[in-house]
Amino acid sequence: MIRVGVVGGTGYTGVELLRLLAAHSDVEVTAITSRAEAGVKVGDYFPSLRGRYDLAFTDPAKAPLKGCDCVFFATPNGVAMSQARALLDDGARIVDFSADFRLKDKAVWEKWYKVAHASPELFDEAVYGLPEVNRERIRKARLVANPGCYATAVQLALLPLVESNFVDHAHLVADAKSGVSGAGRKAEVDMLFPEAADNFKAYAVKGHRHHPEILESLTGLEAASGRHIGLTFVPHLVPMIRGILATTYARITADTDFQALFEQRYASEPFVDVLPPGSQPETRWVRGTNHCRIAVHRPLDGDTLVVIAVEDNLVKGAAGQAVQNMNLMFGFAETRALEQPALFP
Amino acid sequence: MIRVGVVGGTGYTGVELLRLLAAHSDVEVTAITSRAEAGVKVGDYFPSLRGRYDLAFTDPAKAPLKGCDCVFFATPNGVAMSQARALLDDGARIVDFSADFRLKDKAVWEKWYKVAHASPELFDEAVYGLPEVNRERIRKARLVANPGCYATAVQLALLPLVESNFVDHAHLVADAKSGVSGAGRKAEVDMLFPEAADNFKAYAVKGHRHHPEILESLTGLEAASGRHIGLTFVPHLVPMIRGILATTYARITADTDFQALFEQRYASEPFVDVLPPGSQPETRWVRGTNHCRIAVHRPLDGDTLVVIAVEDNLVKGAAGQAVQNMNLMFGFAETRALEQPALFP
Amino acid sequence: MIRVGVVGGTGYTGVELLRLLAAHSDVEVTAITSRAEAGVKVGDYFPSLRGRYDLAFTDPAKAPLKGCDCVFFATPNGVAMSQARALLDDGARIVDFSADFRLKDKAVWEKWYKVAHASPELFDEAVYGLPEVNRERIRKARLVANPGCYATAVQLALLPLVESNFVDHAHLVADAKSGVSGAGRKAEVDMLFPEAADNFKAYAVKGHRHHPEILESLTGLEAASGRHIGLTFVPHLVPMIRGILATTYARITADTDFQALFEQRYASEPFVDVLPPGSQPETRWVRGTNHCRIAVHRPLDGDTLVVIAVEDNLVKGAAGQAVQNMNLMFGFAETRALEQPALFP
Amino acid sequence: MIRVGVVGGTGYTGVELLRLLAAHSDVEVTAITSRAEAGVKVGDYFPSLRGRYDLAFTDPAKAPLKGCDCVFFATPNGVAMSQARALLDDGARIVDFSADFRLKDKAVWEKWYKVAHASPELFDEAVYGLPEVNRERIRKARLVANPGCYATAVQLALLPLVESNFVDHAHLVADAKSGVSGAGRKAEVDMLFPEAADNFKAYAVKGHRHHPEILESLTGLEAASGRHIGLTFVPHLVPMIRGILATTYARITADTDFQALFEQRYASEPFVDVLPPGSQPETRWVRGTNHCRIAVHRPLDGDTLVVIAVEDNLVKGAAGQAVQNMNLMFGFAETRALEQPALFP
Repeated sequence: MIRVGVVGGTGYTGVELLRLLAAHSDVEVTAITSRAEAGVKVGDYFPSLRGRYDLAFTDPAKAPLKGCDCVFFATPNGVAMSQARALLDDGARIVDFSADFRLKDKAVWEKWYKVAHASPELFDEAVYGLPEVNRERIRKARLVANPGCYATAVQLALLPLVESNFVDHAHLVADAKSGVSGAGRKAEVDMLFPEAADNFKAYAVKGHRHHPEILESLTGLEAASGRHIGLTFVPHLVPMIRGILATTYARITADTDFQALFEQRYASEPFVDVLPPGSQPETRWVRGTNHCRIAVHRPLDGDTLVVIAVEDNLVKGAAGQAVQNMNLMFGFAETRALEQPALFP
Repeated sequence: MIRVGVVGGTGYTGVELLRLLAAHSDVEVTAITSRAEAGVKVGDYFPSLRGRYDLAFTDPAKAPLKGCDCVFFATPNGVAMSQARALLDDGARIVDFSADFRLKDKAVWEKWYKVAHASPELFDEAVYGLPEVNRERIRKARLVANPGCYATAVQLALLPLVESNFVDHAHLVADAKSGVSGAGRKAEVDMLFPEAADNFKAYAVKGHRHHPEILESLTGLEAASGRHIGLTFVPHLVPMIRGILATTYARITADTDFQALFEQRYASEPFVDVLPPGSQPETRWVRGTNHCRIAVHRPLDGDTLVVIAVEDNLVKGAAGQAVQNMNLMFGFAETRALEQPALFP
Repeated sequence: MIRVGVVGGTGYTGVELLRLLAAHSDVEVTAITSRAEAGVKVGDYFPSLRGRYDLAFTDPAKAPLKGCDCVFFATPNGVAMSQARALLDDGARIVDFSADFRLKDKAVWEKWYKVAHASPELFDEAVYGLPEVNRERIRKARLVANPGCYATAVQLALLPLVESNFVDHAHLVADAKSGVSGAGRKAEVDMLFPEAADNFKAYAVKGHRHHPEILESLTGLEAASGRHIGLTFVPHLVPMIRGILATTYARITADTDFQALFEQRYASEPFVDVLPPGSQPETRWVRGTNHCRIAVHRPLDGDTLVVIAVEDNLVKGAAGQAVQNMNLMFGFAETRALEQPALFP
Repeated sequence: MIRVGVVGGTGYTGVELLRLLAAHSDVEVTAITSRAEAGVKVGDYFPSLRGRYDLAFTDPAKAPLKGCDCVFFATPNGVAMSQARALLDDGARIVDFSADFRLKDKAVWEKWYKVAHASPELFDEAVYGLPEVNRERIRKARLVANPGCYATAVQLALLPLVESNFVDHAHLVADAKSGVSGAGRKAEVDMLFPEAADNFKAYAVKGHRHHPEILESLTGLEAASGRHIGLTFVPHLVPMIRGILATTYARITADTDFQALFEQRYASEPFVDVLPPGSQPETRWVRGTNHCRIAVHRPLDGDTLVVIAVEDNLVKGAAGQAVQNMNLMFGFAETRALEQPALFP
């Protein structure tokens, strides 16, 4: 039984983490911080959790994280980078949901996030928390940078292609679609129900922050070493609560059995499910679960490969992957607390 | 470990039952029948269950239910009444999701369901499966009639009022609202997305089949004996997938502490949660769970009491209550496999 | 051709007003104010209006309303009451969407709106803009208080009952349901898509501000003089963009042909449509239109009458009724610019 | 004033056509056929049209189309091809919403539609009804094949690129997303609200019927003569009622001012709106209107051009384009009855 702290428990990824941890038999949540809701019982704030947590939110200034074995940051960018150093010194291990430690290049980070980074000296130590790539390093990590939601889906769709030599790596396209919870729980007119319902749009077409994260991670793959990778990435907003579907396009340059390529790559992955040929995955097939389901298509037997990946942006794209990482870090079964089937319909 | 069969596993209540049973440690599902999908693997038909069931659907004619300890009928009205007798004779116990055994009066049943009943001789034996009323009888029952989704929410909202003498029992109003999954998984134009989305309507205003079920059950309460109960019940269709909210109105005839009345009535109920005064329950607070959450209001301190109840129509309103009933019937912990927090958002 | 100004053109009722006025042949919109968006072209801010308006939003401080024949206030409560006096003095006539002039009793107004009223001396002059009640007074009014969205639907459902003597007027119930645009275009967490979608809840159960408005208007009816009217009113939030459905319940005290009562009452009303017996109205039947459609039911031939009314909260519940009022005030055909059929599906 | 007949008035494109024609001052609708609903008043079947049409649906066998100047087929594939010949002989001109006359190559048509074509002799005469390409031919046509909804959006996004020489024409990608009304008004489980809501999926990934239509039309462009055009087209289903957004990707092979290219191409088109640089179009910007709005992007100044087009699938993608074609055929103003702003929100 480890002691777990959650920083920023009032957002969508925070409440999803609390839902998952409620069923985790090896974990005791000892602190959930929120400046705005300090003193409010978790079950009063989130009635979906009534009866699951006795805790109230605590003011982060009151150091409630002292003594935690594992601290999750379910916070906006910029919080973890200020607090990580002290917690690590205190002996805690960290899983950060934000982008603070996802990149290795400080200049790139600061260009995209437009502030100075508070602890770039931790960049080297931080491990990018995609278990399908970094499982062994995650086991030993003190500081895990949990990947972005789009970044997870797009990478899982492209990994087998980037690690091999059958497509044009310089001209990949990822047309990604996300439910609205991906925008976080911030009061913004654009995300009001009457704005986002019965509507569809692309956004961040000029460049989305998950773009450098995906590129750096793919380029850093051992199996891809030396290759130039080019990616056009366009995210879209879907009038649904949860879910990401990424449709990726790659020009085929050499023939192979792509279905087999994907099946072999993910054969032992507990949370990546390569679907039978001809499948057309739907986001609800993974609603509330940590699975990413993938289908491989070659439409009209042409020269373009289409790989489609679905995940729940709040689970495999955030809180579930964070629990998976914690499980690895602390030697628990990798699938613990992540075994519920999807809610359907 | 008991052997469980599911008749009619391809509808919404069926797949929800399979989701819940997948996490039930005392149960082995040995047969899932479907005429239309016989031979298809459950995980291929419902990809949300990939990896959870090795079974394929079986043709009901091939008697796969032989030897089951417990058989669930997640079927339309009219199926269970034809098959119950033989299964009972074979030693199985039954939980029927349909309306076949919910009424005690054959004439009333046949008036509302417009067919002759195939086994009215089982009416006496059948126990109405609302644990909050019939817990002890359910424990011993061979045949449990699982209540209707509306009927569950409306009764839980009204029970403490009907069992006591503080409101006018002859003029109760239940204005109920349900998500679209309540209509079942039938191909009907009215339930297409472009018809039901961004829309709201009342239906069955002339009279809904849950009306006699509610009236008969409330009138049959020991605590209500001899009272005339009058109810106006209007169901509405909400553009959401799951969830029922019932707003009930009762004229106050004698003063009391209604909040306390409800809290005491449900104090030991594991799945009925009387919310703190002033609460305004939302269907998502119970999404995917077996809880019914209730709030008691007296607007503007007037003479009308407003009791609001929410439940998930597929869980407490169907599959979850069925599992709760099975747990009672077989002596398992009443909450087993029903402990997951709600999916939020 | 009259000159029209719009104060507060960036909210939902404002943009709906602009949509309707774009098709009005007797109107030239000469000013649309917005402090926040001053200088921005209307068609850039609302791309749905590209090519329809050459105007940019103007700073209200720059007096762009000078010389307008008619000024609409599509603003939150508290704005019109500060500006009405000066505009009236300037010769303009006013249609106010807010609650500033809807009540006649200053004490009641201040109790519900919790601020001091800035120009209570205008209460007497202001005409409550429900044409079905006050048509002749509206024609001559300088200052029209456009009714609230709920207030319009509930009153149209109850008017024929309150003006006659067949039901118990002291115990009316209005269970009303609204789309999310009724909450306005304010950035609030509760109205975010992931909060309001796939969810249903009651709100303001303790007392909603349209309650005193409905009561005062019904009590003030000549035909209802001397009667005590009691109303329990519970509003609910529906996961749809537009639309209100009010289900009203009244205890029948004397028999009559209620269908005929309603048909006669509204026989010459251009925007109230009493549906054939047995109809179950849907909000989409009036999406984007100024119609209120009403059905009269007596479920199971009992002693409770159920009247269901649907309207588009942004049209008959706001901007459309405002245009109807303007048409009356300026002698245009009452239906001008309000003749488009509903958008379906 | 011309006499207009509508074949198949009970589907989504049919009712949308009736909505648009209700406001058309040059048109009298004299017949609306429906086998299933023969005898039912249009306003009873579609309450959104109450008061707009006195007509009842007529049995198509009773020849109600005799004497019509213009007949619209808002029918599934296979109906128009059987009836067109006789109507043309009778002097009518036809706008067919179905795919019956969209292709010129009978073998291709029969391969994709899997039935024998009933009147291939009309292929040559039929004009593909995309006014932005074939305006002058449409004016004189007797038989217009109204383009598919996806086909319209994708072609308008790609036309300026295919007519010029700045991108790789052999490897175009169109990732398209449609609201559920695009699937038509058929009772299918997949399109039920609980299946399609809160969900996102790709479909027809192997090959969609609009693929050959797009390719044939683009290849047939005079300005594109001799070029090989290759297209990967993946449609997706969005949980919204109306709207299509197509995100198209093209590899840039020669530099130019793409914004200017698009603006010039569509400068005089009444229904194609090239948005200012940086725009991110939303489907609701065109809800209920005949406009297609287009944005041209070059993300991160890379070598891939991204062109995004939005339309209402039932208007510019079906009924609105049909009215535009009729306006051209009969010499009416091209925009008549198509001038309403979008319904927003």
